[in-house]
Amino acid sequence: MSVAGLKKQFYKASQMVSEKVGGAEGTKLDEEFKDLERKVDVTNKAVIEVISKTSEYLQPNPASRAKLSMLNTMSKIRGQVKSPGYPQAEGLLGECMTKYGRELGEDTNFGGALVDVGESIKRLAEVKDSLDIDVKQNFIDPLQGLADKDLREIQHHLKKLEGRRLDYDYKKKRQGKIPDEEVRQALEKFHESKEVAEISMYNLLETDIEQVSQLSSLVESQLQYHRQAVQVLDELSDKLRDRMKEAQSRPRKEYVPKPKPIIDFGDTNEQSNGGFAPTSSPPMRNAAAEQPCCKALYDFEPENEGDRSSATLRSLH
Amino acid sequence: MSVAGLKKQFYKASQMVSEKVGGAEGTKLDEEFKDLERKVDVTNKAVIEVISKTSEYLQPNPASRAKLSMLNTMSKIRGQVKSPGYPQAEGLLGECMTKYGRELGEDTNFGGALVDVGESIKRLAEVKDSLDIDVKQNFIDPLQGLADKDLREIQHHLKKLEGRRLDYDYKKKRQGKIPDEEVRQALEKFHESKEVAEISMYNLLETDIEQVSQLSSLVESQLQYHRQAVQVLDELSDKLRDRMKEAQSRPRKEYVPKPKPIIDFGDTNEQSNGGFAPTSSPPMRNAAAEQPCCKALYDFEPENEGDRSSATLRSLH
Repeated sequence: MSVAGLKKQFYKASQMVSEKVGGAEGTKLDEEFKDLERKVDVTNKAVIEVISKTSEYLQPNPASRAKLSMLNTMSKIRGQVKSPGYPQAEGLLGECMTKYGRELGEDTNFGGALVDVGESIKRLAEVKDSLDIDVKQNFIDPLQGLADKDLREIQHHLKKLEGRRLDYDYKKKRQGKIPDEEVRQALEKFHESKEVAEISMYNLLETDIEQVSQLSSLVESQLQYHRQAVQVLDELSDKLRDRMKEAQSRPRKEYVPKPKPIIDFGDTNEQSNGGFAPTSSPPMRNAAAEQPCCKALYDFEPENEGDRSSATLRSLH
Repeated sequence: MSVAGLKKQFYKASQMVSEKVGGAEGTKLDEEFKDLERKVDVTNKAVIEVISKTSEYLQPNPASRAKLSMLNTMSKIRGQVKSPGYPQAEGLLGECMTKYGRELGEDTNFGGALVDVGESIKRLAEVKDSLDIDVKQNFIDPLQGLADKDLREIQHHLKKLEGRRLDYDYKKKRQGKIPDEEVRQALEKFHESKEVAEISMYNLLETDIEQVSQLSSLVESQLQYHRQAVQVLDELSDKLRDRMKEAQSRPRKEYVPKPKPIIDFGDTNEQSNGGFAPTSSPPMRNAAAEQPCCKALYDFEPENEGDRSSATLRSLH
């Protein structure tokens, strides 16, 4: 750093100390400028927080979000083009439904319906993926650009302005001890900086219709997402209604108990696995079991009602 | 426990050991029964996992979900009726938008649009709250009831059946050493249990149309949610379009630099704060500053173009 640069740094630091510690009053900027500054500051905060909250809206699970961001970084390092997507809750729910639906069998009411609903909910996940991509491209990225470029540039101008103000205030206080020309030049530079900062802030705020158009992009993406979801669900709703109508028109089948197996204590040379093999005789209804239809091999009094149909009796069939 | 009960426990344990360790084969149940058992098992797993994945779909942030569940328990303990709701990502985004929009001023394009969009997105959060409540009531709760009642009952029957099977198999192996009557009774009880288990499983699977109707409730709630969202966003989209049209019809205002302030080095008795006070003269355009309109108090050569409009010159106005 040059001697002049060092001196300037010293002036600024010295002035800052006398303002912060000594309570000296520095040159104030006009109200109009301060209003611009305040509005730009709010814009900056709004942009940063809206970006963060929109990301949470699109990808609400912080753990999944963090994992995804890590995976994306990794695949960038590896030079992979395709990076994984966010695991949408809809996708996980749909996947689980179709999986169990298939295990249960699509010929069953619940199994078939689970597959139908699961497939549609997986479609909802895809529709949400599109929302994610659209909003990222047309809302988050432009806002991020604003924060990284225009707003950062303004911050830079304002910082420079503050430095020049400190320098000017330091010299002004020493008026007489410091050549007037030097004071004049400091004021000059201060004004120059102020104008640059003011123009950049003014322009940002004057073109804020661009941010409105970005907000409008967000809304259009959301609208499209919800419209597509309605379409997917409308079709599904019809399908389910048909499925229920059809199932309700089918007569309900009553439980038909299987015939009691035969057991023969006389033959210990094992019938298959321990003599417990259902006969191939036609199933009989519960009520039928109440009818005497067996011949006793053993002579015993039934303890319970059910004992009459005991398997220690040889079936007559 | 009675002596008979103890004996039974011993038989069962002993048989289980000889099956698990000794590889003894127990009585097998028929394929039809096993198929029922498998289907009920899949249903059970499906119900439990669908409940959990649906909760994640409705309340995707695990930390918020855990916190909410804790708060709900607390307010139940305290006897409070109203418990807090899940912090929807939409609500947080909408809140942030309206807050900054108001700070920025609704008279600005961006501020006004932020308030509009924020209010609508907060409405989306309300619509999602309704989805949450509806799905909980008409989908999750009935499924939970099924898991807690019917499915648990079946588990109970199956467990009892397994116990009776072990008891029967133990006795059957000792046929001859144990009175036949005892073996017969064990088989009797085994069959009795099997029939109860079978009926309960059969009935659950035969009435699976109820689960279809619950799935249909889920889909109807989702459909209503997305339809309401479309309605909210449709209105918002129109509003934003009007706002943009109106803003674009207004002529863009160019930046008008403020007049350079006067500074008088002759008067060190402080003008307000250091003599930096903008004059009340009408603002002049940048170009005007390029015209000679000032009288030099000091004789100097400008270093830069801008120096000509230096504030160390006394304005002529």
